[in-house]
Amino acid sequence: MYKVKVYVTLRESVLDPQGSAVKSALHSMTYNEVQDVRIGKYMELTIEKSERDLDEAIREMCEKLLANTVIEDYRYEVQEVVTK
Amino acid sequence: MYKVKVYVTLRESVLDPQGSAVKSALHSMTYNEVQDVRIGKYMELTIEKSERDLDEAIREMCEKLLANTVIEDYRYEVQEVVTK
Repeated sequence: MYKVKVYVTLRESVLDPQGSAVKSALHSMTYNEVQDVRIGKYMELTIEKSERDLDEAIREMCEKLLANTVIEDYRYEVQEVVTK
Repeated sequence: MYKVKVYVTLRESVLDPQGSAVKSALHSMTYNEVQDVRIGKYMELTIEKSERDLDEAIREMCEKLLANTVIEDYRYEVQEVVTK
Protein backbone atom coordinates (compact mmCIF):
# COMPACT_ATOMS: atom_id res chain seq x y z
CA MET A 1 0.00 0.00 0.00
CA TYR A 2 1.21 3.48 -0.76
CA LYS A 3 0.55 6.85 0.76
CA VAL A 4 0.83 9.53 -1.91
CA LYS A 5 1.04 13.19 -1.00
CA VAL A 6 0.05 15.50 -3.83
CA TYR A 7 0.73 19.24 -3.72
CA VAL A 8 -1.10 21.42 -6.23
CA THR A 9 -0.03 25.05 -6.47
CA LEU A 10 -0.98 27.92 -8.74
CA ARG A 11 1.67 28.71 -11.33
CA GLU A 12 3.92 31.66 -10.50
CA SER A 13 2.41 33.81 -13.24
CA VAL A 14 -1.19 33.28 -12.09
CA LEU A 15 -2.76 35.77 -9.68
CA ASP A 16 -3.84 34.28 -6.35
CA PRO A 17 -6.75 36.36 -4.97
CA GLN A 18 -7.27 33.94 -2.07
CA GLY A 19 -3.63 34.36 -1.10
CA SER A 20 -3.90 38.16 -1.33
CA ALA A 21 -6.95 38.11 0.92
CA VAL A 22 -5.11 36.00 3.51
CA LYS A 23 -2.12 38.34 3.28
CA SER A 24 -4.34 41.39 3.94
CA ALA A 25 -5.98 39.60 6.86
CA LEU A 26 -2.56 38.79 8.35
CA HIS A 27 -1.46 42.42 7.91
CA SER A 28 -4.59 43.63 9.70
CA MET A 29 -3.64 41.22 12.51
CA THR A 30 -0.30 43.12 12.81
CA TYR A 31 1.76 40.48 10.97
CA ASN A 32 3.23 43.03 8.59
CA GLU A 33 6.33 40.92 8.07
CA VAL A 34 4.32 38.62 5.79
CA GLN A 35 5.31 39.59 2.25
CA ASP A 36 3.46 37.06 0.18
CA VAL A 37 0.96 34.23 0.57
CA ARG A 38 0.20 31.60 -2.05
CA ILE A 39 -2.50 29.05 -1.44
CA GLY A 40 -2.63 25.58 -2.90
CA LYS A 41 -4.14 22.18 -2.27
CA TYR A 42 -2.70 19.25 -0.43
CA MET A 43 -4.07 15.77 -0.98
CA GLU A 44 -3.27 12.46 0.66
CA LEU A 45 -4.16 9.41 -1.39
CA THR A 46 -4.01 5.88 -0.06
CA ILE A 47 -3.40 3.59 -3.02
CA GLU A 48 -3.34 -0.20 -3.04
CA LYS A 49 -0.75 -2.07 -5.03
CA SER A 50 -2.00 -2.93 -8.49
CA GLU A 51 -0.51 -4.13 -11.75
CA ARG A 52 -0.59 -0.54 -13.02
CA ASP A 53 2.57 1.56 -12.86
CA LEU A 54 2.16 3.77 -9.80
CA ASP A 55 3.95 6.87 -11.11
CA GLU A 56 2.08 6.76 -14.37
CA ALA A 57 -1.25 6.32 -12.57
CA ILE A 58 -0.57 9.26 -10.24
CA ARG A 59 0.47 11.48 -13.12
CA GLU A 60 -2.72 10.59 -14.99
CA MET A 61 -4.91 11.26 -11.93
CA CYS A 62 -3.24 14.63 -11.42
CA GLU A 63 -3.50 15.72 -15.02
CA LYS A 64 -7.05 14.51 -15.58
CA LEU A 65 -8.65 15.38 -12.26
CA LEU A 66 -6.60 16.70 -9.37
CA ALA A 67 -4.83 19.64 -11.00
CA ASN A 68 -5.76 22.06 -13.75
CA THR A 69 -2.43 22.06 -15.55
CA VAL A 70 -3.26 25.23 -17.46
CA ILE A 71 -2.95 27.31 -14.31
CA GLU A 72 -1.59 24.85 -11.73
CA ASP A 73 1.56 22.87 -11.11
CA TYR A 74 1.67 19.67 -9.12
CA ARG A 75 4.26 17.55 -7.42
CA TYR A 76 3.94 14.41 -5.37
CA GLU A 77 5.74 12.18 -2.92
CA VAL A 78 5.20 8.44 -2.57
CA GLN A 79 5.65 6.61 0.72
CA GLU A 80 5.32 2.85 0.95
CA VAL A 81 3.22 1.79 3.92
CA VAL A 82 4.16 -1.53 5.46
CA THR A 83 1.16 -3.12 7.13
CA LYS A 84 2.05 -5.22 10.15
CA MET B 1 13.68 36.11 4.61
CA TYR B 2 11.88 32.88 5.27
CA LYS B 3 9.69 30.67 3.15
CA VAL B 4 7.18 28.89 5.36
CA LYS B 5 5.16 25.95 4.07
CA VAL B 6 2.00 25.33 6.04
CA TYR B 7 -0.03 22.14 5.66
CA VAL B 8 -3.56 22.13 7.07
CA THR B 9 -5.38 18.81 7.15
CA LEU B 10 -8.71 17.68 8.54
CA ARG B 11 -8.40 15.69 11.75
CA GLU B 12 -8.61 11.91 11.33
CA SER B 13 -11.99 11.74 13.05
CA VAL B 14 -13.60 14.38 10.83
CA LEU B 15 -15.48 13.31 7.70
CA ASP B 16 -14.05 14.64 4.45
CA PRO B 17 -16.86 14.89 1.88
CA GLN B 18 -14.60 16.60 -0.66
CA GLY B 19 -12.16 13.71 -0.37
CA SER B 20 -14.97 11.17 -0.77
CA ALA B 21 -16.16 12.95 -3.92
CA VAL B 22 -12.65 12.88 -5.40
CA LYS B 23 -12.34 9.20 -4.50
CA SER B 24 -15.62 8.38 -6.28
CA ALA B 25 -14.50 10.38 -9.30
CA LEU B 26 -11.20 8.47 -9.41
CA HIS B 27 -13.07 5.16 -9.13
CA SER B 28 -15.31 6.12 -12.02
CA MET B 29 -12.12 6.83 -14.00
CA THR B 30 -11.10 3.16 -13.37
CA TYR B 31 -8.60 3.96 -10.59
CA ASN B 32 -10.16 1.45 -8.23
CA GLU B 33 -6.88 0.97 -6.37
CA VAL B 34 -7.42 4.32 -4.63
CA GLN B 35 -8.64 3.43 -1.14
CA ASP B 36 -8.86 6.80 0.49
CA VAL B 37 -8.48 10.50 -0.34
CA ARG B 38 -8.11 13.28 2.21
CA ILE B 39 -7.96 16.88 1.06
CA GLY B 40 -6.22 19.67 2.86
CA LYS B 41 -4.70 23.06 2.24
CA TYR B 42 -1.16 23.97 1.43
CA MET B 43 0.09 27.51 1.96
CA GLU B 44 3.39 29.16 1.16
CA LEU B 45 4.16 32.27 3.18
CA THR B 46 7.08 34.55 2.50
CA ILE B 47 8.01 36.22 5.76
CA GLU B 48 10.59 38.92 6.33
CA LYS B 49 12.86 38.82 9.34
CA SER B 50 11.46 40.78 12.25
CA GLU B 51 12.12 41.10 15.95
CA ARG B 52 9.21 38.72 16.63
CA ASP B 53 9.93 35.03 17.25
CA LEU B 54 9.21 33.28 13.94
CA ASP B 55 7.86 30.00 15.34
CA GLU B 56 5.58 31.78 17.75
CA ALA B 57 4.31 34.11 14.99
CA ILE B 58 3.58 31.20 12.65
CA ARG B 59 1.78 29.28 15.38
CA GLU B 60 -0.36 32.32 16.15
CA MET B 61 -1.20 32.89 12.47
CA CYS B 62 -2.19 29.24 12.09
CA GLU B 63 -4.31 29.14 15.21
CA LYS B 64 -6.04 32.46 14.66
CA LEU B 65 -6.53 32.44 10.92
CA LEU B 66 -5.08 29.71 8.74
CA ALA B 67 -6.44 26.61 10.45
CA ASN B 68 -9.61 25.86 12.35
CA THR B 69 -8.05 23.86 15.17
CA VAL B 70 -11.39 22.38 16.22
CA ILE B 71 -11.49 20.22 13.11
CA GLU B 72 -8.07 20.74 11.52
CA ASP B 73 -4.45 19.97 12.29
CA TYR B 74 -1.57 21.96 10.94
CA ARG B 75 2.14 21.51 10.53
CA TYR B 76 4.74 23.75 8.97
CA GLU B 77 8.27 23.81 7.61
CA VAL B 78 10.54 26.84 7.62
CA GLN B 79 13.19 27.41 4.98
CA GLU B 80 15.57 30.34 5.17
CA VAL B 81 15.92 32.10 1.86
CA VAL B 82 19.29 33.67 1.21
CA THR B 83 18.98 36.63 -1.12
CA LYS B 84 21.99 37.16 -3.33
